[in-house]
Amino acid sequence: MIKNKIYQIVEKGSHGSRQNLIFDYVIMTLILLNVIAIILETIPEINRLYGSFLRSFELISVIIFSIEYLMRLYVSDLSHPSSSRIKSILKFVFSGYGVIDLLAILPFYVPFLIKADLRFLRILRLMRFFQILKINRYHNSLNLIWSVIKEKKGELTITAFVTFLALLVSSFLIYYIERDVQPDKFPNILAGFWWAIATLTTVGYGDVYPVTAFGKVISGFVAFLGIGLVALPTGIIGSGFMEKIDKRKHKITCPKCGEEIEDKN
Amino acid sequence: MIKNKIYQIVEKGSHGSRQNLIFDYVIMTLILLNVIAIILETIPEINRLYGSFLRSFELISVIIFSIEYLMRLYVSDLSHPSSSRIKSILKFVFSGYGVIDLLAILPFYVPFLIKADLRFLRILRLMRFFQILKINRYHNSLNLIWSVIKEKKGELTITAFVTFLALLVSSFLIYYIERDVQPDKFPNILAGFWWAIATLTTVGYGDVYPVTAFGKVISGFVAFLGIGLVALPTGIIGSGFMEKIDKRKHKITCPKCGEEIEDKN
Amino acid sequence: MIKNKIYQIVEKGSHGSRQNLIFDYVIMTLILLNVIAIILETIPEINRLYGSFLRSFELISVIIFSIEYLMRLYVSDLSHPSSSRIKSILKFVFSGYGVIDLLAILPFYVPFLIKADLRFLRILRLMRFFQILKINRYHNSLNLIWSVIKEKKGELTITAFVTFLALLVSSFLIYYIERDVQPDKFPNILAGFWWAIATLTTVGYGDVYPVTAFGKVISGFVAFLGIGLVALPTGIIGSGFMEKIDKRKHKITCPKCGEEIEDKN
Amino acid sequence: MIKNKIYQIVEKGSHGSRQNLIFDYVIMTLILLNVIAIILETIPEINRLYGSFLRSFELISVIIFSIEYLMRLYVSDLSHPSSSRIKSILKFVFSGYGVIDLLAILPFYVPFLIKADLRFLRILRLMRFFQILKINRYHNSLNLIWSVIKEKKGELTITAFVTFLALLVSSFLIYYIERDVQPDKFPNILAGFWWAIATLTTVGYGDVYPVTAFGKVISGFVAFLGIGLVALPTGIIGSGFMEKIDKRKHKITCPKCGEEIEDKN
Repeated sequence: MIKNKIYQIVEKGSHGSRQNLIFDYVIMTLILLNVIAIILETIPEINRLYGSFLRSFELISVIIFSIEYLMRLYVSDLSHPSSSRIKSILKFVFSGYGVIDLLAILPFYVPFLIKADLRFLRILRLMRFFQILKINRYHNSLNLIWSVIKEKKGELTITAFVTFLALLVSSFLIYYIERDVQPDKFPNILAGFWWAIATLTTVGYGDVYPVTAFGKVISGFVAFLGIGLVALPTGIIGSGFMEKIDKRKHKITCPKCGEEIEDKN
Repeated sequence: MIKNKIYQIVEKGSHGSRQNLIFDYVIMTLILLNVIAIILETIPEINRLYGSFLRSFELISVIIFSIEYLMRLYVSDLSHPSSSRIKSILKFVFSGYGVIDLLAILPFYVPFLIKADLRFLRILRLMRFFQILKINRYHNSLNLIWSVIKEKKGELTITAFVTFLALLVSSFLIYYIERDVQPDKFPNILAGFWWAIATLTTVGYGDVYPVTAFGKVISGFVAFLGIGLVALPTGIIGSGFMEKIDKRKHKITCPKCGEEIEDKN
Repeated sequence: MIKNKIYQIVEKGSHGSRQNLIFDYVIMTLILLNVIAIILETIPEINRLYGSFLRSFELISVIIFSIEYLMRLYVSDLSHPSSSRIKSILKFVFSGYGVIDLLAILPFYVPFLIKADLRFLRILRLMRFFQILKINRYHNSLNLIWSVIKEKKGELTITAFVTFLALLVSSFLIYYIERDVQPDKFPNILAGFWWAIATLTTVGYGDVYPVTAFGKVISGFVAFLGIGLVALPTGIIGSGFMEKIDKRKHKITCPKCGEEIEDKN
Repeated sequence: MIKNKIYQIVEKGSHGSRQNLIFDYVIMTLILLNVIAIILETIPEINRLYGSFLRSFELISVIIFSIEYLMRLYVSDLSHPSSSRIKSILKFVFSGYGVIDLLAILPFYVPFLIKADLRFLRILRLMRFFQILKINRYHNSLNLIWSVIKEKKGELTITAFVTFLALLVSSFLIYYIERDVQPDKFPNILAGFWWAIATLTTVGYGDVYPVTAFGKVISGFVAFLGIGLVALPTGIIGSGFMEKIDKRKHKITCPKCGEEIEDKN
């Protein structure tokens, strides 16, 4: 009975009962506060003043997350039904969220065993948000976006691939053109690749840029290619959304004869 | 009678009578001149030469805006009908535009009471433009844009949320990667967040950028994610506009009965 | 007869006869060579070596353009029919292309009259391209793009207006936030406006950027607003193109009964 | 027989037999490893340690590519049927991929003949990817994207042309405005053109930017034009994709005769 109850609260979030919602919001708030704490810890002034408080909060969080993890382990035969209890536990432990949950609490326990600073793994706690997102009212929107991206996978992949080729070719060219004039800025082709990314995505930090006439010509081409790089996926995704909308909605009822005319797009 | 007249002019702009239009244009011109005056005041050379003139103009403007505010207070029982006069006044004072109107003239009166420089509040006068926009011929366009954004709220929110998560994760990563090499540029995770925003939006000021190989890899991923960040909302909004147009226009003539069928999506 | 002939060649480009095409291409080539000459003139090394040649070429071009202008004046009663000859001439002289043509040759004659360097006006010769574009095969594409922009004028204007308000408000805020810390970078609100444009359009030169925490928050908001600034007009224009295509094409012929079903979107 | 077999493997990739797939993947892997080797060669530390290994790998690759080229020459009468054997060989040698294949192996043999460093030509090997792409499952996506771009050629060309004019005009203006204040940054109009590209594409490296008030005004206009430069092609391409989808899918059932009507736009 209690096991079932725990299962309902910890795993079956999709039911949307009052208890589940409260549990989800508590966990989400805790994660958010945790992330803020991690951020604040890296600011020396704040760490000096409130460091002990932040570490206590981290301690409490880890305890809560650990209890939750143990509870999930406990109900793993319900959430991951299998032929034997051990198999269920292993199934949960090696499931996507099982691994994330473990990695998110691990950094706390590791220093007791070996000397390693894995604190950056704590960021993995954010992944839990996706799990929680799935059960709330944004579910449909997330699904719609995801299905559009999946449906247009072919076109998006080919765009990404051609982009990658363009990056490679332009980083080769810029390296051979600029290396003699700016050997410190373009010491190898990888430096050219870094420049190509910054130019193609139009970020343009300004740490590397061509100074030769021909290098600037290449740069101009890459920058305009970057415009196309935005235009293509946008057009692809936009048409994908339109398709989805058309599919869902295209049905016409003739008001006179009552006939339903289905427009088969 | 006069009260009704004042109400017509000051509040009922939507009627579009000649007097209302003139009143609206006078107020809009006054606001624009005010904003220009505020800008010019911050340029020392101009302030030295024309400072007294600018301050006189500000004085006159505040008097006009104050009179307008009092007039609105006076007709608040017509614009915000309520059970008692006091309630109407309070309703107006705490309405969106009531608060904005008050805050926009307050900076002038505050120094007489307490010592505080609230002059930056004068920028709030620009908010009045939205109020005036509502009543003019751009009303439909504004409504259309707004309704598209509202309809696609779910998809846009989820995109914003995933973007926010990506910003958080990448600022964590860049901080842990770059802090040892550039401790002055990445002193804490917030600095990483600032870098992540500049990279994801492809602004790329160039004040902070990664120098390590792995940092550059992260940077490349974030920059390409930025391309997606443009593609997704654009596709969403574009399809939203298409939907609106379809709704307005989709009509088919049934070839059987000759009746015009309205497609109710 | 000759006058009619001249009129056919110089003005009636739209007829697309062989002679017209040749005339158009000669003029276009001449303009292009002119622009290249103007560019080369500004490079000292080239100017030193080939300066006299470039100036001779400029002289010949101006003579050709002047003859063309006189020819247009001569046939102005055909191209701009009016009650009297003088009126026709004036009509041409003050028409859009009449003014441009005159301004494009003026810089050459002005130094003989008054001392003024108006050579930059020569760039106006490029405007002629639009005139020539109108008559060639890209006419339809240009028209389509133009009609989409015109049809969506309301939505695009409102987007531009809201963008302008956002620029104003953010330049005010950044000025009041950053002026104490970076008085040399943000000496007045206009400097803030310059920063706001560079951030909103995601150009991000890196000459001015916020250093305070609050300034960076504002900067982040403006940069994300910039993403929206791309998404909105793109969505608007994209849906405009779709509308045009729908209008032109939506007609279905039933292959059985031969009935044409018109889809009235 | 053997000739036919070779032809099947080397050229007729589209058949998708097991042998062809293996051959294609081996070639693709070899090209990728080659590109990585070329990149690594430019990093001094790696070149010092593994240089001889990288050069051996390059030698083996060239041998393989050379054999493949000879094999293609051998089967050229099957892949490029012609009236005589010599004509077939020439047809292949001067075909697009024939030239690319030769240029990609040439850099190795050239130093034996004349003294020239053509190693950068090795990047041409990447072009082979397009050839291989054509025969795999991304064929349809590539075709769809290509057909959309081709169909919208008119609109895209006109956008590119107007963009080019805008670049020219703004580089003229910025040069005449900024040359007196920043003669080192804007020595000639070409420098202005470089600035115009960086601004219009919103790359904004920050190596050149206006400092005068009027220059900043021009800069703002160009930057906002850049937004439009993204919006226009995106809208054009997006509507192109929609059109394609409509064409493939628009089918309506005529309610009179029950026949399925295909919409032929």
